[in-house]
Amino acid sequence: MQRALRLAEKGLFTAAPNPRVGCSIVKGGVEIGAGWHPGVGEPHAEVFALREAGTAARGATAYVNLEPCSHFGRTPPCADALVAAQVARVVVGNIDPDPRVAGRGVEKLRAAGIEVITEVLAEACDALNQGFFKRMHTGRPLVRLKIAHSLDGRTAMASGESQWITGEAARADVQYWRARSCVVLTGADTLLHDQARLKVRPDLLKRRWPDHPPLQGPKRVVVDSQLRVPPDHPFYADVSDVLVCTAADQSGPVLEALTHRGIQVISLPRRGEHLDLDELLLALGERGVNEVLVETGPRLSGAFIRQHLIDEVVLYMAPRWLGSRGLPVVDLPLDQMADSLGLQIREQRQFGSDWRIIAVPEKHSASAAAAD
Amino acid sequence: MQRALRLAEKGLFTAAPNPRVGCSIVKGGVEIGAGWHPGVGEPHAEVFALREAGTAARGATAYVNLEPCSHFGRTPPCADALVAAQVARVVVGNIDPDPRVAGRGVEKLRAAGIEVITEVLAEACDALNQGFFKRMHTGRPLVRLKIAHSLDGRTAMASGESQWITGEAARADVQYWRARSCVVLTGADTLLHDQARLKVRPDLLKRRWPDHPPLQGPKRVVVDSQLRVPPDHPFYADVSDVLVCTAADQSGPVLEALTHRGIQVISLPRRGEHLDLDELLLALGERGVNEVLVETGPRLSGAFIRQHLIDEVVLYMAPRWLGSRGLPVVDLPLDQMADSLGLQIREQRQFGSDWRIIAVPEKHSASAAAAD
Ligand SMILES: NC(=O)c1ccc[n+]([C@@H]2O[C@H](COP(=O)([O-])OP(=O)(O)OC[C@H]3O[C@@H](n4cnc5c(N)ncnc54)[C@H](OP(=O)(O)O)[C@@H]3O)[C@@H](O)[C@H]2O)c1
Ligand SMILES: NC(=O)c1ccc[n+]([C@@H]2O[C@H](COP(=O)([O-])OP(=O)(O)OC[C@H]3O[C@@H](n4cnc5c(N)ncnc54)[C@H](OP(=O)(O)O)[C@@H]3O)[C@@H](O)[C@H]2O)c1
Repeated sequence: MQRALRLAEKGLFTAAPNPRVGCSIVKGGVEIGAGWHPGVGEPHAEVFALREAGTAARGATAYVNLEPCSHFGRTPPCADALVAAQVARVVVGNIDPDPRVAGRGVEKLRAAGIEVITEVLAEACDALNQGFFKRMHTGRPLVRLKIAHSLDGRTAMASGESQWITGEAARADVQYWRARSCVVLTGADTLLHDQARLKVRPDLLKRRWPDHPPLQGPKRVVVDSQLRVPPDHPFYADVSDVLVCTAADQSGPVLEALTHRGIQVISLPRRGEHLDLDELLLALGERGVNEVLVETGPRLSGAFIRQHLIDEVVLYMAPRWLGSRGLPVVDLPLDQMADSLGLQIREQRQFGSDWRIIAVPEKHSASAAAAD
Repeated sequence: MQRALRLAEKGLFTAAPNPRVGCSIVKGGVEIGAGWHPGVGEPHAEVFALREAGTAARGATAYVNLEPCSHFGRTPPCADALVAAQVARVVVGNIDPDPRVAGRGVEKLRAAGIEVITEVLAEACDALNQGFFKRMHTGRPLVRLKIAHSLDGRTAMASGESQWITGEAARADVQYWRARSCVVLTGADTLLHDQARLKVRPDLLKRRWPDHPPLQGPKRVVVDSQLRVPPDHPFYADVSDVLVCTAADQSGPVLEALTHRGIQVISLPRRGEHLDLDELLLALGERGVNEVLVETGPRLSGAFIRQHLIDEVVLYMAPRWLGSRGLPVVDLPLDQMADSLGLQIREQRQFGSDWRIIAVPEKHSASAAAAD
């Protein structure tokens, strides 16, 4: 299954909206076929692996991190293919939550007399496709918040001076998270301040992961309820991968200029003064988005946190004190200790002289667990 | 030498103002004598080890983390004892910076025809006695700042609400640092707010280190230039281990009450409105203090940091966001990024759900290196 997972990872940057799936076919301790799913319109992992194994697949064991599909989609059911190849045993990581599959793949295999073992390395398999699973269960993508701050929780001096505080290794790692996301999301004010483009930088990604799998590049989404970002902003230089989320009541020259340039704009309901962020996530889910990376300023980050919409935080901490006048990383005006937000730290790792902390907000993980 | 260091650690909580020293005597691959220095007035490590070895010490190798002394202090020179025992070889960690020794111990041994190897595991040996070494070199103790804050660098809500945010494992670890310090230092306002006593809590220490060596307990020192802390404060309940540092110009009923109760008070020059902290450190150094643990509020912590008087920071980070209104952990009003303080992280380790970070301020480590 470790091998199947490593195969699945070859689709890390391209499989979405589909899940990342790898398949290894083994006979007499030797791998006779291997495959992974490269992305939409391409054959599934099992198909590639069976092709390579040929007639030798008969009597072999297939390892696959996700339940083989049972329905006719863009490709015929993989469960049927495994039956036809007369494999003896199928070892499965996760059951596919896709309502068109949801256990029927395993049933089909068992009905054909194939031994099926499920939930093998289920946790690791789960982690790889967490965004896809969340979308299947809730209609919303996994939301990951990237923040970077000093040891004392500041991003800039009071003056606004914020010459980048983390080092190159941390910045290269950010490319990895961008690359695996379907969407990188930011807010209007960040673009107005920063001239940010939020593209994956392949040179930095290579430094982080020299043999990385094929790269597709995420959609870049901006939240701009009043269309304040001008159409000639560098963010809009490449129109092919941009999506603008604005309020349903918008009209006027900016909207016209954007649509005229072929930039995709979607209209969303408001919640108070701004866009309804949960509606935004539903809209992204409908468009097949599995993983969102939020890379923005303190106000929009704070809004996501306060509404408990963050599933995971990727935090880069620079070993530096910016001092008690420095600006906070998230706008989180809490008054009582009872409102403070607990996180569970999943991993800490050094990148250059900085530290990356991966954490999961506590309240959210509790409510998500209840909802699942 | 590892063994000698483990022996030396038995004096971790009691050896000061002397250095922590362990000695292992080995012959034919077998330890025939072991000893450590328990503290002032007790024999040195070598003496205990030689006693245990007896006449078998002849031709043996002695491992000792610090150069054997060459002068008559409270005990006769250990170098002489090793010569008299006719050991064949002495393996030394650090040369003793004490001006009364400073290489003369090694010379004595060599003059007697004993083979001497020095600087073995020198770094580890150095770390154990860093405070003693700093005092010998600069007249000042090692200063360690303990702070505890949330992931976003806050210690309390704006209201002051600060129900303790780190967990029991972190609080137990604090006892370890208190126990190994000669002085735990705090400020008047912390005492006025908190009813803190800053004693080592043996129950918590036991949980952190079940088989810990004998405990002496540090002196508890308060910086109170205007003698604002009332003599009936719980901090003064035990008068035996308290030291009050006040300004030279103080007099009046509080001073009288304190001295009447037998509490030690020392008078120090001012620097601006407050005590001169560097003079304070010199005064502690003169009293044989090797390691100081600063456990106080944001103002006094900030003053130590701004004056570059901190050698090491022990930081406990609770995985929690207290929000952007929360109070900062240190008062550090910096305006320019160029003034921000870099730290070098030496170690990160989990205590319960909290993280302990040990770091060394960058500027200070640079200037200290130049001064040494
Ligand atoms: N250190 C870092 O990692 C980092 C990263 C990015 C940016 N920055 C800095 O952050 C600053 C910008 O910060 P910012 O917070 O003003 O910009 P921001 O993150 O772009 O936030 C403002 C945007 O979020 C929207 N928004 C605010 N509250 C909302 C809510 N409750 N619901 C929905 N949408 C909401 C605003 O909506 P409308 O569209 O309705 O106005 C606006 O589009 C810049 O100086 C930039 O340099 C730092
Ligand atoms: N989270 C934690 O780890 C923690 C730990 C301890 C305390 N606290 C909280 O911190 C608060 C108290 O904070 P605080 O900062 O006001 O108390 P503090 O640390 O006691 O600081 C004030 C003391 O430091 C002295 N001082 C201030 N600036 C100085 C300078 N430049 N040079 C020399 N001495 C100086 C003052 O001098 P004078 O004697 O001249 O007045 C006073 O004695 C309390 O609410 C407490 O609960 C939190």
